[in-house]
Amino acid sequence: MSLTVVGSIAFDAVTTPFGSRERMLGGSAVHFSLASSFFTDVRVVGPVGDDFGPEEHAVLRARGVITDDIEHVPGGETFFWRGHYDYDLNTAHTDETRLNVFGDFSPKLSQDSRECDVLFLANIQPDLQREVREQCEGARFVALDSMNLWIETARDALLRTIETVDCVMLNDAEIRQLTRKPNLVQAARELRALGPRVVVAKQGEYGAALLTDEGFFGLPAFPLETVLDPTGAGDSFAGGFIGFLAAHGTDELDHETLCRAMAYGTAIASFNVEEFGTERVRRLTRDEIAARVSELHRITHFVDAPVSLRA
Amino acid sequence: MSLTVVGSIAFDAVTTPFGSRERMLGGSAVHFSLASSFFTDVRVVGPVGDDFGPEEHAVLRARGVITDDIEHVPGGETFFWRGHYDYDLNTAHTDETRLNVFGDFSPKLSQDSRECDVLFLANIQPDLQREVREQCEGARFVALDSMNLWIETARDALLRTIETVDCVMLNDAEIRQLTRKPNLVQAARELRALGPRVVVAKQGEYGAALLTDEGFFGLPAFPLETVLDPTGAGDSFAGGFIGFLAAHGTDELDHETLCRAMAYGTAIASFNVEEFGTERVRRLTRDEIAARVSELHRITHFVDAPVSLRA
Repeated sequence: MSLTVVGSIAFDAVTTPFGSRERMLGGSAVHFSLASSFFTDVRVVGPVGDDFGPEEHAVLRARGVITDDIEHVPGGETFFWRGHYDYDLNTAHTDETRLNVFGDFSPKLSQDSRECDVLFLANIQPDLQREVREQCEGARFVALDSMNLWIETARDALLRTIETVDCVMLNDAEIRQLTRKPNLVQAARELRALGPRVVVAKQGEYGAALLTDEGFFGLPAFPLETVLDPTGAGDSFAGGFIGFLAAHGTDELDHETLCRAMAYGTAIASFNVEEFGTERVRRLTRDEIAARVSELHRITHFVDAPVSLRA
Repeated sequence: MSLTVVGSIAFDAVTTPFGSRERMLGGSAVHFSLASSFFTDVRVVGPVGDDFGPEEHAVLRARGVITDDIEHVPGGETFFWRGHYDYDLNTAHTDETRLNVFGDFSPKLSQDSRECDVLFLANIQPDLQREVREQCEGARFVALDSMNLWIETARDALLRTIETVDCVMLNDAEIRQLTRKPNLVQAARELRALGPRVVVAKQGEYGAALLTDEGFFGLPAFPLETVLDPTGAGDSFAGGFIGFLAAHGTDELDHETLCRAMAYGTAIASFNVEEFGTERVRRLTRDEIAARVSELHRITHFVDAPVSLRA
């Protein structure tokens, strides 16, 4: 099934304890579309400026991402983010944000993008997310991401948008902040009561959890000895998760399919953080993904056999 | 195989957002021994004062814990801890600590306790842990816990003690603090290079990870809608984990056995936090444990079947 993602396209300047890059391709829609390109046709919608050239287009096209709806704003500059991480790689510290063309972004979807079966609303202003969602009337499965900024400044708008989607993907701290409930199980149920069937709690280096009416599924992150740059991990996870669902049917979306999708999201996110920006995922192969999912299966499996316990 | 635990026996005063108790049975050796009592004979070694009476003994004896080596210090008072938790139940805030008889604790092990097959050194001063370890020459498997206080004030002593044990069980933040390595995989390898074969990283509400030379195993915590009091969760986890190993052979300690032990530790810890102190575990049944382990298996399992990915 066809997949459309709407979000940011960016240049990132990132410093971590393990190195730095002054200007690299990034943005939620970029990380998401590269990850989901392993599963289905992906159309990416987002604005860029004059500084976004053939080299950047080529990264996406090399993975078969359809870039027709990347909107070039003449005279503008592409969204720029500068940040750093200390040894606690779970926390990004923002040093500079230049919204540039992203500041006036009003998503314009082509007929093809609007006719998607699956839609991912990456982290943009919640009212814009809802406008896009309304343009994609035929979408059978719609997921969204958001961030603390919108929870703090546009909470009601975000809640209204959540009412219109099938799946919410947030960091677990954001889920607690949004619902004002410290218990994740209760918080996820409250979100589902608004409409979405599926809640995914991203937990950074600890993994991710899936919470639906059918139950819970928890998966640790893939253990890595080398983590160079966590930027884009959440969007790569979302791309693998949503991409898998788009490829394997969202109509009879059963619990088993959702759990398998979690594994693919986890696997691709783990590659993402091994190098800076898109450097690892752009040369990732399907065999590497399959091998990592199998490894993830192995390292989370235990034998549940009867044992003799004392009364 | 027989199991000895050396650690604190305490009265705790605990306040959480969900209630409070002014004086309840607690301490690392208590939580550990109740949890491990489902698997094997457990001897508990630790000091108490005149205020530790038949009622407290009865809680342990009801679960078959052998209390002969609980040392009664005449005229003394039992270790007392007062603390509270806010909505972030991962962080305990200490309001008052009265070491009382625990301040002068010098573990005295009976012949039976010294002849244990498996020894757990709960969180006490590292030099005392090493003295106990040396008294139990015949122990085939020795594990220890510790805390940030000892890492900060007795790091060298702790490292020397770690050299003498088979298994280190610490919070993941403590493992990083002790090794001064931010990456858990690298940090655990450094600990294993000191001697222990097995490193268990406790991750609070996110679960736990096992790191050995044979590989990694990660397990989320059991998702709970009701968490009243996390006090003792880590010791209950350790009791389930070490108890399982004591019951299922520590000589040919294979990876599968260690992974199964992780599941039992996780299950019992999840019961511990559902109520205050030992209130839930003291009436826990073996059927409830077995059912929760099976449920844990179900909610961490995904199907790893071939999928068609795009090149």
